[in-house]
Amino acid sequence: MNKIDTHPIYIEPFHVDFTGRVFLGVLGNHLLNAAGNHSQKRGWGIGALNETRHTWVLSRLSIEMMEMPRNYQHCQIRTWVESVMKLFTNRNFAVEDADGRPLGYARSVWAMIDLETRRPCDLLTLYDGDILNYVVSEEENVCPIEGHGRFRFRDAQLVRTIGTYYSDVDINGHINSIKYIEHILDLFTREQMERGIRRFEIAYKAESYMGDTLSFYLQPVSDTEADVEVRKNSTPDTPGEVVCQAKVRFN
Amino acid sequence: MNKIDTHPIYIEPFHVDFTGRVFLGVLGNHLLNAAGNHSQKRGWGIGALNETRHTWVLSRLSIEMMEMPRNYQHCQIRTWVESVMKLFTNRNFAVEDADGRPLGYARSVWAMIDLETRRPCDLLTLYDGDILNYVVSEEENVCPIEGHGRFRFRDAQLVRTIGTYYSDVDINGHINSIKYIEHILDLFTREQMERGIRRFEIAYKAESYMGDTLSFYLQPVSDTEADVEVRKNSTPDTPGEVVCQAKVRFN
Repeated sequence: MNKIDTHPIYIEPFHVDFTGRVFLGVLGNHLLNAAGNHSQKRGWGIGALNETRHTWVLSRLSIEMMEMPRNYQHCQIRTWVESVMKLFTNRNFAVEDADGRPLGYARSVWAMIDLETRRPCDLLTLYDGDILNYVVSEEENVCPIEGHGRFRFRDAQLVRTIGTYYSDVDINGHINSIKYIEHILDLFTREQMERGIRRFEIAYKAESYMGDTLSFYLQPVSDTEADVEVRKNSTPDTPGEVVCQAKVRFN
Repeated sequence: MNKIDTHPIYIEPFHVDFTGRVFLGVLGNHLLNAAGNHSQKRGWGIGALNETRHTWVLSRLSIEMMEMPRNYQHCQIRTWVESVMKLFTNRNFAVEDADGRPLGYARSVWAMIDLETRRPCDLLTLYDGDILNYVVSEEENVCPIEGHGRFRFRDAQLVRTIGTYYSDVDINGHINSIKYIEHILDLFTREQMERGIRRFEIAYKAESYMGDTLSFYLQPVSDTEADVEVRKNSTPDTPGEVVCQAKVRFN
């Protein structure tokens, strides 16, 4: 079996923003679907894993786009496993137009957890290390964007606190990974969003649940870059646990 | 050309709620896409209309489901024009599983407006009444659910006020029709949403824009039914203009 899958996507009218470019959250959803299909076909999907009481957990996602797909555009996502370590695997993506011209790339990091203990598993021994069969060669691993960066929050300011409701929650009862992206981008002005996003990074640190409040702390880095930290159930005295951290770079 | 189109849909993992059933907003989005494709193919789509400076505006949508599509399910939407009046057209939908077994139905009402005057157009004379060629026969028009009801708000209570942000806005700069559905369903409890939605009706009354505040007024009708009125930019003294009204019936 080929190690790289090509997953066609189509940009629907309600999935584009006021500039006609696809919402980054929608693109993120397409990436996660492409990843899910790729694993599923190779026996590593959520369905197969549930039988052995394991599941994938997304830890990092970095997306960098030269050009955002636009309304009604047919595109494709290619995805593959870059590498496997004991507790994490790196999966990369290329976003291309229908002719295979690159529009952008993404990198992601995943852990596999045991559903009962919620502890990470050893990917190198699970299923006799079968996942190693899907790691691509160095030549095939074309993903010319920076790796995941580090976050340093020094003077982030609380800018918004929101409740979480029915529409925020996924099938596991957790706030959906994509909804954090939407809520984070909702912090920015119309002018910033008009410029469009060049790069977006997110690190998922802890789960949150329906009914949790999420507080958003914004730290501008430069004219074109800002970091955001999301904490849950902060009180006036104490910032709550960090749920995720993100970096947004505008064009 | 056949008057009824069949539009395949697939229920993706991040598009289902904590019960594993598709979010009603996502289903609504699929219905609108099916409608868009159906019009487009017959020369009545947004693209063609923009050239003549007209566009479709959704006025009513009522969805009634015997069974909600579930995670990973392949389904299809059939859609057709039921009737055309001077200022409105009725479009119906059947939601079916991949074998054509009905899961539910929907009805919708659309107006066509002139983009410059924002006034409704006469559908019976536009393009020499071409749309009349697509009205199905009575036998083909199988949509065994009630028509759109009337709303009567007497003692609705303000239950939530929210801001509107980047993710709420569509390509026209308006709050997206589907986002209202999400925000309305977010008013309900986990227990109500667990039962699932049997019928949902919405009447769109006015546009709102990024930055508008939306106030949600809830009027319980019975144990299994509630009405919601959404107003924009209400002040403590004066309820704002009505943006939309909805009725939710739970299983």
